[in-house]
Amino acid sequence: MKARIKITLKEGVLDPQGKAIANALGALGFDGVGDVRQGKYIEVELKESERASAEKTVESMCKQLLANMVIENYSYELEDA
Amino acid sequence: MKARIKITLKEGVLDPQGKAIANALGALGFDGVGDVRQGKYIEVELKESERASAEKTVESMCKQLLANMVIENYSYELEDA
Repeated sequence: MKARIKITLKEGVLDPQGKAIANALGALGFDGVGDVRQGKYIEVELKESERASAEKTVESMCKQLLANMVIENYSYELEDA
Repeated sequence: MKARIKITLKEGVLDPQGKAIANALGALGFDGVGDVRQGKYIEVELKESERASAEKTVESMCKQLLANMVIENYSYELEDA
């Protein structure tokens, strides 16, 4: 089973990397670009085949290692291999 | 309109960051973790309201700035604001 995890900054947390991208897009001539937020995207291959226990595992991975719960949110999708 | 863009490394490109995550998950006691790949996730707020032209804009953003097409792939979803 494959987990596709998105880690994003919480609303209100400053995102200088996103700002830099927005500025660079403007400099390249893209008009009408509003807010840009950068996050992380992680794909994890799991040997788990049961959806419920895979969900539990991924939640626990996010909380313990992948996301900093003080400033970040996570979301994920599971996909059967 | 909001674009949710995923930038991932192409198959075969080494991903030391992903390897580090896999090792750290192993050290935390998560068994059965296979391949881990880290990519980027970018949300861009567009003033564009037409889907076709928004698609063109996002493709062009990815090719010109967001993704390094030599080693990375991109995919995206558009969402009406």
